[in-house]
Amino acid sequence: MGPVPRTLELFYDVLSPYSWLGFEVLCRYQNIWNIKLQLRPSLLGGIMKDSGNKPPAMLPRKGQYLREDIKLLRQHFQVPIEFPKDFFSTILEKGSLSAMRFLTALSLEHPEMLEKVSRELWMRVWSRDEDITEPQSILAAAEKAGMSAEQAQGILEKISTPKVKNQLKETTEAACKYGAFGLPITVVHVDGQPHMLFGSDRMELLAYLLGEKWMGPVPPAVNARI
Amino acid sequence: MGPVPRTLELFYDVLSPYSWLGFEVLCRYQNIWNIKLQLRPSLLGGIMKDSGNKPPAMLPRKGQYLREDIKLLRQHFQVPIEFPKDFFSTILEKGSLSAMRFLTALSLEHPEMLEKVSRELWMRVWSRDEDITEPQSILAAAEKAGMSAEQAQGILEKISTPKVKNQLKETTEAACKYGAFGLPITVVHVDGQPHMLFGSDRMELLAYLLGEKWMGPVPPAVNARI
Repeated sequence: MGPVPRTLELFYDVLSPYSWLGFEVLCRYQNIWNIKLQLRPSLLGGIMKDSGNKPPAMLPRKGQYLREDIKLLRQHFQVPIEFPKDFFSTILEKGSLSAMRFLTALSLEHPEMLEKVSRELWMRVWSRDEDITEPQSILAAAEKAGMSAEQAQGILEKISTPKVKNQLKETTEAACKYGAFGLPITVVHVDGQPHMLFGSDRMELLAYLLGEKWMGPVPPAVNARI
Repeated sequence: MGPVPRTLELFYDVLSPYSWLGFEVLCRYQNIWNIKLQLRPSLLGGIMKDSGNKPPAMLPRKGQYLREDIKLLRQHFQVPIEFPKDFFSTILEKGSLSAMRFLTALSLEHPEMLEKVSRELWMRVWSRDEDITEPQSILAAAEKAGMSAEQAQGILEKISTPKVKNQLKETTEAACKYGAFGLPITVVHVDGQPHMLFGSDRMELLAYLLGEKWMGPVPPAVNARI
């Protein structure tokens, strides 16, 4: 028996494009590094409010840079990410509350579906510029991820229960306690000490902390499968 | 004869710790990749003002994160970086105007000394918590970098000339035109198109754009020399 795998917690919101990049990198490495990846759906809006931070795109020059950055990272990370046409309405006004409650309910009832449904929600909002706020949008993502219509409907009916609402609140508060002022954050425990890494550009540092090998955002084992 | 080296412009200010990290990485790779590194001393304060951005440390939770981030990156990048005790006074109040004018004068008169003197200024402010605002502080850094006392004094006498002041202003404006809202930025021209990369965490993406190999922040050739 090898050493016990280290637990990594990834706190994310499907509204956050850099969360998607971090998510895909960690999903690729979960079968390469000796880690156990815990997906923690959180609410970006709650974290911004609690920390007093503002969305980077609110500063025009940052907003401009983000578009260029995402365009380059799309190629480099091999993630089909694309800015929604109406960024302010889609990201800042409509938000992701129902979608993140759905993922939270999934994490409680069918955690094995969390990765695939999260990805399909990102594919909607951050690749094909499709809605993620209406019930039928969320159901479509769930079915595309392989859930049956009945199963997806069953989860959807739970998103307004106190249990699910509280769980999303608790996870968001946990991210804040780790010091989050945005998403994604990755929390890794090494030698009994938690390290919180912000963003999708600390994955090489994460490898260094874990004593694992960094092979870029698209490690060869993944390449071989494409 | 191989292909013509690509020119990289690094815009930096010695007040910026991430500029130091980016600077050391590019200085290491300038002898490995087929690049010509142009060091462009700029004024961080001018860029923040022009872009409307605020120093990240102004948000308490970001400030806290920066300290932890720098501590980890210090090991990973092998750069002896250390937070000054009184960050607000050293970085936000005292600033770097004279130091950056000195580096600007150097870039005009002794560009071959720019790398070493920049490093010695960072060693003062971001490693040993020493002053960089007084004339004798700047002269000490220059001499430590290998300049003679006469040579350093000669450069110091030029930092208030219109030529030097204007050059620093122009370089800072050039960074703003590239879309800077902080430092460092690295500008690379690939296929006739400029790409501006912000921060010290886009160096792997830079390698990808250049078609060069990324070998981490401490490439083996550098390791071998240590």
